[in-house]
Amino acid sequence: MVEKIKENDYVLLYLSPKRTYLVKVEREKEFHTHKGFIKLGELVDKEYGIRISSSTGAEFVALKPKIRDYIFKSQRRTQITYPKDIALIVMFSGIGPGSHVVEAGTGTGALTTALAFYVKPSGHVYTYEIREEFIETAKKNLTRANVINYVEIKNKDITKGIDEKEVDAVILDMATPWLVVSHAYQALKPSSIFVSFSPTIDQTIKTVEALEQNGFVDIQTFECLTRGMQIKPGKTRPQTLMTAHTGYITYARKTKKQ
Amino acid sequence: MVEKIKENDYVLLYLSPKRTYLVKVEREKEFHTHKGFIKLGELVDKEYGIRISSSTGAEFVALKPKIRDYIFKSQRRTQITYPKDIALIVMFSGIGPGSHVVEAGTGTGALTTALAFYVKPSGHVYTYEIREEFIETAKKNLTRANVINYVEIKNKDITKGIDEKEVDAVILDMATPWLVVSHAYQALKPSSIFVSFSPTIDQTIKTVEALEQNGFVDIQTFECLTRGMQIKPGKTRPQTLMTAHTGYITYARKTKKQ
Amino acid sequence: MVEKIKENDYVLLYLSPKRTYLVKVEREKEFHTHKGFIKLGELVDKEYGIRISSSTGAEFVALKPKIRDYIFKSQRRTQITYPKDIALIVMFSGIGPGSHVVEAGTGTGALTTALAFYVKPSGHVYTYEIREEFIETAKKNLTRANVINYVEIKNKDITKGIDEKEVDAVILDMATPWLVVSHAYQALKPSSIFVSFSPTIDQTIKTVEALEQNGFVDIQTFECLTRGMQIKPGKTRPQTLMTAHTGYITYARKTKKQ
Amino acid sequence: MVEKIKENDYVLLYLSPKRTYLVKVEREKEFHTHKGFIKLGELVDKEYGIRISSSTGAEFVALKPKIRDYIFKSQRRTQITYPKDIALIVMFSGIGPGSHVVEAGTGTGALTTALAFYVKPSGHVYTYEIREEFIETAKKNLTRANVINYVEIKNKDITKGIDEKEVDAVILDMATPWLVVSHAYQALKPSSIFVSFSPTIDQTIKTVEALEQNGFVDIQTFECLTRGMQIKPGKTRPQTLMTAHTGYITYARKTKKQ
Repeated sequence: MVEKIKENDYVLLYLSPKRTYLVKVEREKEFHTHKGFIKLGELVDKEYGIRISSSTGAEFVALKPKIRDYIFKSQRRTQITYPKDIALIVMFSGIGPGSHVVEAGTGTGALTTALAFYVKPSGHVYTYEIREEFIETAKKNLTRANVINYVEIKNKDITKGIDEKEVDAVILDMATPWLVVSHAYQALKPSSIFVSFSPTIDQTIKTVEALEQNGFVDIQTFECLTRGMQIKPGKTRPQTLMTAHTGYITYARKTKKQ
Repeated sequence: MVEKIKENDYVLLYLSPKRTYLVKVEREKEFHTHKGFIKLGELVDKEYGIRISSSTGAEFVALKPKIRDYIFKSQRRTQITYPKDIALIVMFSGIGPGSHVVEAGTGTGALTTALAFYVKPSGHVYTYEIREEFIETAKKNLTRANVINYVEIKNKDITKGIDEKEVDAVILDMATPWLVVSHAYQALKPSSIFVSFSPTIDQTIKTVEALEQNGFVDIQTFECLTRGMQIKPGKTRPQTLMTAHTGYITYARKTKKQ
Repeated sequence: MVEKIKENDYVLLYLSPKRTYLVKVEREKEFHTHKGFIKLGELVDKEYGIRISSSTGAEFVALKPKIRDYIFKSQRRTQITYPKDIALIVMFSGIGPGSHVVEAGTGTGALTTALAFYVKPSGHVYTYEIREEFIETAKKNLTRANVINYVEIKNKDITKGIDEKEVDAVILDMATPWLVVSHAYQALKPSSIFVSFSPTIDQTIKTVEALEQNGFVDIQTFECLTRGMQIKPGKTRPQTLMTAHTGYITYARKTKKQ
Repeated sequence: MVEKIKENDYVLLYLSPKRTYLVKVEREKEFHTHKGFIKLGELVDKEYGIRISSSTGAEFVALKPKIRDYIFKSQRRTQITYPKDIALIVMFSGIGPGSHVVEAGTGTGALTTALAFYVKPSGHVYTYEIREEFIETAKKNLTRANVINYVEIKNKDITKGIDEKEVDAVILDMATPWLVVSHAYQALKPSSIFVSFSPTIDQTIKTVEALEQNGFVDIQTFECLTRGMQIKPGKTRPQTLMTAHTGYITYARKTKKQ
């Protein structure tokens, strides 16, 4: 009854909170790290959660990857604290199993992975990406996370229009979200939700202005900061460094225009 | 094809971001606010998102409630910024459609509502609450949010043991989470996830110590802060007040004990 | 040798960290609070730090006011966490005993009080205020804090020019700091410091642009947040509420124009 | 009348906000950086604030060092955001020109430099340091900042007692501040101020408990966070990284024991 690691599964090899590796279990392969290599074939038919020693004796744990791991490993280096924002975007968008969602831009598929995970099995994500070079990476990441079947990737410019109608949410992580606001209004079900994520205050101001002019209410902008704690008897304290900024989340609900 | 408001639906009457009301649409009832009353019968068969005037001419919008609204309205006053934490707890727990989750304590059902929403249609939440007086409120809130079918409420003391086996996550928001750590280890699938939310640093330290002694790895504690922005041309700035603290989130993964 | 309370001294009557009163000790007066009244005459010739009971038995402590108390009590209600910003403004401005400082606007004199306190005994503050109605309040506050002799209050519009030359710092807390940047350049000693405090990002952007165009270097903007901790055995945690924003501090150094 | 750079003065060579160098102007010396070298003799008799080109054509500015620069350059690498805390410690301690202050531990003299700067010309700092190896560094830093005349460095263990009486403030940045609380009570003037800075919550709890048991009131603990802003037209946003924690500041006032 206990779930076993199978050939071609992805496992998360855990060394420390900052040293984890998302690896495909191929029977003849070795996985090399700065702490020696691991014979991946030895993991096959073992239970998830097993401890395994590298060639130099370092202890790794073979974990079953979770949605946060897939998101985290789909990201480019510069966006390393993004999961906190994705969590809030998902919650504020109101999406869940069965929802139909429009997203742009796809990028490497990190946010797309999360959206697809939460709308399955009966929902769907329509994701727009104008930069063709990202699409293969996104597909690979979505396939690895087992959510590719819930996603349609569209190599189109969302600022030119949205094909879908009656969607539950429009979620944007792109350079010019304000150019999509009127299209989002057309695509959304009445009372449904627009969310946009932007690094700069300038983008945020333009987006809020567009929302105010296009029949949205409950327009709110906020930022999310997470701070790690070092929990050790006698030495408990916040960690020394933190990410000070990833972006501003802007949220709004469609209403009937007056 | 457009979704209409039906009798006995819940609507979110929106006046401003800080003035929203979750109201059941009963044909003969009036809903009274400090800005006059609304005849709820007038909403029946209207589209969600419609604007409606109160008896004193104040404009409300009748929105379809989203998961965040159900969570927010299930809370007691003192926990008013909780949705941010719930979003992170859900993401870090790795749960999604189909997951089986143990939770304690139920309280008024705010976190339970979120867990049930994200595990449906094929998952389930088993929620423990020792304080009998909360159970009716929780049931009412879960029913209102249409997720009661995915939840089993257990009037039991989780520090005495967990009935379920092979669950995908154990999620705690209770006074003594450290007393549940060894039970959580027994209940969890290998490699699955423990999350605990505690207001004080003392609770957090005890919980981390228990996790370290009970075969968990990747133990991390962090806190989440959200800060609202006032976005107005020429007057853009962070809002004046914010919630400085709700609680610390502690997260860990079960591994095979050595 | 021990310092005693004298008639007409100001004392800080302390009930709790949030309940303190800055009161002049007049022999025949009573000071009334929601916790009963105190006969002020009883304090004369007592040591600072003495505990005194009110008419209803509440215990107050008669403390000697410190610079932070004078600042805090000079503020209008809306600026209640300002001391943290004043501390940073003073430090970044580089001023100390002997410095000559230009300030605008005076307002109620809270920042002026701090500047005068740190430049005495041989320095001086020249403070500009266009709104005549503030000047009496500022004088009263500066007199109470014993720093009036180190201040010249000027009822003039600083955007029209600065009279002083070779000053050590120009420090602004006013609506349009960018209009003062070129005057500040003229007034400052070479290599000396400009500091401006503004609530909005729009003001900050304009100020930084003006600094870049007027021969300043090392231009930096930051904000300061303080978060109170509740320290109680078994219940230690950050406090629930905090001030999320007072303003942005912008800092720059004059250099020779190229 | 304009202040000129003299031989043996310290200048702050500024390349960018993150690249500044505190250098003694010696006539025959070159100062080497990754952007070429500067002939220091060329600075003699020039005005502060002058721009100077390195051997590779990079432009530096020769600034007059301010108190913040001396503090910053006296620090060890691990304490790189300390000036914000020093600013708050100074403000909350209530010290100013003429104050007599006890400090421990001296360390490299960063905090001592600030305290001496603000109490001059008639005040004095008595600083305790048990680790003899720090004392020469502290002396060098205090001399460079021109404040050595206002400081007495004592190679003594402050947990064994404080020699001074009737001081205006006791300021601690050391591993075991709670062991100094009763000595601080003896040394302080009635109603005067105790401030302690500690990285961990465990140290803070012990210190607060000692203060409560030793006749102090108005006991408050807080932390200070500063966040840099990137101000650029169209690209304004908080900076990506920040220091999440340096330490907790605990503050209290001596009162007469009951």
